[in-house]
Amino acid sequence: MKTLILLAHPEVDVSSSQQFLLSAVEDLANVTVVDLQGQLTSQGPFQQAAELERLQAYDRLIFQFNLYWYQAPSILKNWLDVVLPEGSEAKNLAGKELGLVVSTGVSAHHFASGGRVGRTLSELLSPYESLARYFDWTYLPIFHIAQFSYLKEEAKYELLWRYRAYVETGNYQSEHAFGEYLIKALQEVTAEHLPINATYRRIFEAFVMHYEEVHATNAELYDLMEEW
Amino acid sequence: MKTLILLAHPEVDVSSSQQFLLSAVEDLANVTVVDLQGQLTSQGPFQQAAELERLQAYDRLIFQFNLYWYQAPSILKNWLDVVLPEGSEAKNLAGKELGLVVSTGVSAHHFASGGRVGRTLSELLSPYESLARYFDWTYLPIFHIAQFSYLKEEAKYELLWRYRAYVETGNYQSEHAFGEYLIKALQEVTAEHLPINATYRRIFEAFVMHYEEVHATNAELYDLMEEW
Repeated sequence: MKTLILLAHPEVDVSSSQQFLLSAVEDLANVTVVDLQGQLTSQGPFQQAAELERLQAYDRLIFQFNLYWYQAPSILKNWLDVVLPEGSEAKNLAGKELGLVVSTGVSAHHFASGGRVGRTLSELLSPYESLARYFDWTYLPIFHIAQFSYLKEEAKYELLWRYRAYVETGNYQSEHAFGEYLIKALQEVTAEHLPINATYRRIFEAFVMHYEEVHATNAELYDLMEEW
Repeated sequence: MKTLILLAHPEVDVSSSQQFLLSAVEDLANVTVVDLQGQLTSQGPFQQAAELERLQAYDRLIFQFNLYWYQAPSILKNWLDVVLPEGSEAKNLAGKELGLVVSTGVSAHHFASGGRVGRTLSELLSPYESLARYFDWTYLPIFHIAQFSYLKEEAKYELLWRYRAYVETGNYQSEHAFGEYLIKALQEVTAEHLPINATYRRIFEAFVMHYEEVHATNAELYDLMEEW
């Protein structure tokens, strides 16, 4: 699966959350990030034919942005307005996945009836759900990052891996799928990534094996629970 | 009450629904219509200070647009992003009313669970509800015009007056308020508006009086019902 991330931010360079997310996926060969504002500034208005050709080459599309006035920045709507085709042409784009990666300056509990925002993120972003429906795309769960700058270091690294999982698999919420994803990533760690001596490498390998066993045991327990 | 209509359409001149709406309010002294795209094209990017100064002069703000990809055209988000202030500056704008006049190419019943769009117009446009909440504005009921071009002539004239009522009073759904609005408009019809001979004028005046009586009787009946 190839993923296209369309990043909508007026100035990506000054956004700490967007810079962090970019650093989290820069080594992934199947992931392409496009800075929409940067492209517009350097190459001029979006060209429908070229944008559609690029879109065709990907299986998963991700709109990534900081929520501003409860919506994406205008540059994303500009892209939608210029690029997306209606009617029979739309059918050529069917079968993809659509994900949203949304950073908010206020904490998650405000997005609820009675909260400061008063509406859920699902409601505020429902136009993208209808868009996915129109194009026959699978609408993925929204990846919500609330108050990034207040996160502790450990939470940021957890976020980094959940975000990688979302971008590469479309899933970040299932603990089972996330565990599988982490094990695969750990198995791919070579001496090049982790230049440590033989003893520490044995310890690392033992940790990975142990984590695999814990993961397998949890999966079995979960299956038993399901059978109850 | 002074009303500012911010019209968001890439080409207002070619939109039959927008041209119809414009013609419906052009004689109203307390209503100002701004074609955002036209202003951007002729005067360049929105200037926050000037836009805020204009906004301050109005009590009711109306965003008017054709729904495109389940959202307003990007020009409106562009205006929001550039113009609206956060924090303490936002307090200077408190107490206004916010209305939305939204034209859709598909009929109203598709905006529902299980419908073609799958989401209600209230959900799709919920970012404006949260915006109104943020600025302490009264969020008016959405004025929804579905498939304007398929409307019969009579329906268009009904729409014209409901739209005028919405723009001038913020209300278009209450039959009582709409009746009051029509009576007031009929009472203001002079010989200049209706250049007819004395006999026809008598008939017209009799009709207006009759309509006032019917309206008053309905209001009394409604009050009785309320008391049951």
